[in-house]
Amino acid sequence: MELELDELEEFRLYRERMNKRVLSAKNLGIKRFFALDTRAYEASALDAKTKELLGLVASTVLRCDDCITYHVIRCVQEGVSDTEFFEAMNVALIVGGSITIPHIRRAADILDQCREKKRKGHTLDI
Amino acid sequence: MELELDELEEFRLYRERMNKRVLSAKNLGIKRFFALDTRAYEASALDAKTKELLGLVASTVLRCDDCITYHVIRCVQEGVSDTEFFEAMNVALIVGGSITIPHIRRAADILDQCREKKRKGHTLDI
Amino acid sequence: MELELDELEEFRLYRERMNKRVLSAKNLGIKRFFALDTRAYEASALDAKTKELLGLVASTVLRCDDCITYHVIRCVQEGVSDTEFFEAMNVALIVGGSITIPHIRRAADILDQCREKKRKGHTLDI
Amino acid sequence: MELELDELEEFRLYRERMNKRVLSAKNLGIKRFFALDTRAYEASALDAKTKELLGLVASTVLRCDDCITYHVIRCVQEGVSDTEFFEAMNVALIVGGSITIPHIRRAADILDQCREKKRKGHTLDI
Amino acid sequence: MELELDELEEFRLYRERMNKRVLSAKNLGIKRFFALDTRAYEASALDAKTKELLGLVASTVLRCDDCITYHVIRCVQEGVSDTEFFEAMNVALIVGGSITIPHIRRAADILDQCREKKRKGHTLDI
Amino acid sequence: MELELDELEEFRLYRERMNKRVLSAKNLGIKRFFALDTRAYEASALDAKTKELLGLVASTVLRCDDCITYHVIRCVQEGVSDTEFFEAMNVALIVGGSITIPHIRRAADILDQCREKKRKGHTLDI
Repeated sequence: MELELDELEEFRLYRERMNKRVLSAKNLGIKRFFALDTRAYEASALDAKTKELLGLVASTVLRCDDCITYHVIRCVQEGVSDTEFFEAMNVALIVGGSITIPHIRRAADILDQCREKKRKGHTLDI
Repeated sequence: MELELDELEEFRLYRERMNKRVLSAKNLGIKRFFALDTRAYEASALDAKTKELLGLVASTVLRCDDCITYHVIRCVQEGVSDTEFFEAMNVALIVGGSITIPHIRRAADILDQCREKKRKGHTLDI
Repeated sequence: MELELDELEEFRLYRERMNKRVLSAKNLGIKRFFALDTRAYEASALDAKTKELLGLVASTVLRCDDCITYHVIRCVQEGVSDTEFFEAMNVALIVGGSITIPHIRRAADILDQCREKKRKGHTLDI
Repeated sequence: MELELDELEEFRLYRERMNKRVLSAKNLGIKRFFALDTRAYEASALDAKTKELLGLVASTVLRCDDCITYHVIRCVQEGVSDTEFFEAMNVALIVGGSITIPHIRRAADILDQCREKKRKGHTLDI
Repeated sequence: MELELDELEEFRLYRERMNKRVLSAKNLGIKRFFALDTRAYEASALDAKTKELLGLVASTVLRCDDCITYHVIRCVQEGVSDTEFFEAMNVALIVGGSITIPHIRRAADILDQCREKKRKGHTLDI
Repeated sequence: MELELDELEEFRLYRERMNKRVLSAKNLGIKRFFALDTRAYEASALDAKTKELLGLVASTVLRCDDCITYHVIRCVQEGVSDTEFFEAMNVALIVGGSITIPHIRRAADILDQCREKKRKGHTLDI
């Protein structure tokens, strides 16, 4: 189980390190895109929780495990319940079909790792 | 403008006619999938408006104009505001990239046709 | 109905004309790819009907209407029954999700146009 | 080689464990989708072997390694020969392009692991 | 032929009108994305012609006709020759497979319309 | 770091071994496709460097890590600079959206491994 909790930390560290690397390339377009990406999920007319669910479902139908991991962590931070999580996953499953199932399995795995981490009193960083 | 309003009606009639045709084939799997599809968007832990926004963003990143048209109409029926609509579209644009822009243009077009139809006192059926 | 039958003919003529145009460009890679494309569906260990069903399902989950139209016509030529057609579509629907439904509607429409054309004693060319 | 045979078992165990986890969430839509997914491949007008080949090609053009692994195992169980397997892969390659090649490499790897497992007299479960 | 030339103008006018509509929504994220989109194709270490070819091939493998039309027009403006155009299309065809062929047919059609427009001394706007 | 350099070698060896396995199947269509794939990137009207950038961007928007790894190595062999690399990645990011970011992170990682390998005087094979 400790090993699995490490999966979240490994994801976070690689993502952080390589984002720095990519941004170090001084490509202004990429740098600005990263800023827009962050802002797109900030609360406005739609709240942050709804926007994270949108990001989660979009990532699931497009089948990107790293994007799913990121949005599952953010959904947990925004207080998404298990029932809400699986209702969103059901929309993704219906829209995207059985090809999304392996990603839904991994999303549920990440969700459980996040819950376990919080249960143990660890912080859940991204 | 009358011509454009017809676009919604044309969409509705073709969709209705061909859904009947497909269901007339007596394939039990397809019939049950259609039932699951409808139920996935019913209010539960997540409300119907949020679920329609999830369907709209999923359809936009997967770039299916007919699915987008359907969910724009349903979003309008569920009371999504223009600001909320474009915030959802912004998430789709960030996740899915410029390849979604032609679909966002058509989604905005459909949104305007829905608003116009309601302004004129017409019902907005799906 | 006559109008709808024209849809098949319009498809065939545009496809034929533009294939000629593309091949006129004397790009050897494109020319050879077109030859491989034709041969991939020829009967061998798997018969032509099975291969056309593979092409139909692949085109449906990738959601390309022109490719679907082509393979529906070829499936009819190879003697695929309506029941077999909808069982293949059900696999595509399950794998690919509701995003394939607009394409399944159009595939059923094309199927009906092919059946109508044959019922009238017209040839079904591609 | 023992290590590679473990890959099939690891896949099976994770899939089984996480399917249970996902279904434990008591989301009726997801539960019913899983049932439809199973039924879509049962013999009817099209036999089970043809349906598994449809699932395999659909998974390959959509480029999902877990789905490919599942359908390769099922194809072997249904008696698909190597020649039939590679003819189906050729259709996938032509429809989906070189982007499917890494998945075809892994599909061939899984196929060989399945053959090896059967050669050794082990059962091939899913 | 005049009719076909109108296709380019119709595309340009709808694109221009709906871009204005989308930008009128005052969504800052969308507005900034549109700016980044324009800048991504400006000459820098890679020249504008190479960048347009990158945009054309990306649009072709992702199979977006509107995006293809846009980049074909821009490629013609940047002086891409027919031979270069079809070599780029060949890369797209190999990477993306036969599913791109209907889009390559339409891309060749748009290319011919652009050449015809220039031959007649008309300006080729976007 | 030595470990990461091994990643390139592991990729190369698995690719080489499984390509041989796939080609050993004596499927003429697959064999000919592999030949067309190689030829598509040979210098002609467009030079090899431009064609590799086209392959890299196509692989990135289609989000295939193995294809990206291959084209990053080939781009380095053809003398693509870091600035050119990130300008091409920026086009992929704009066209394909944030869903490409995990792949851009890994592409940058592979690029750094290639540079390190060359810096150490090792050959960079594919």
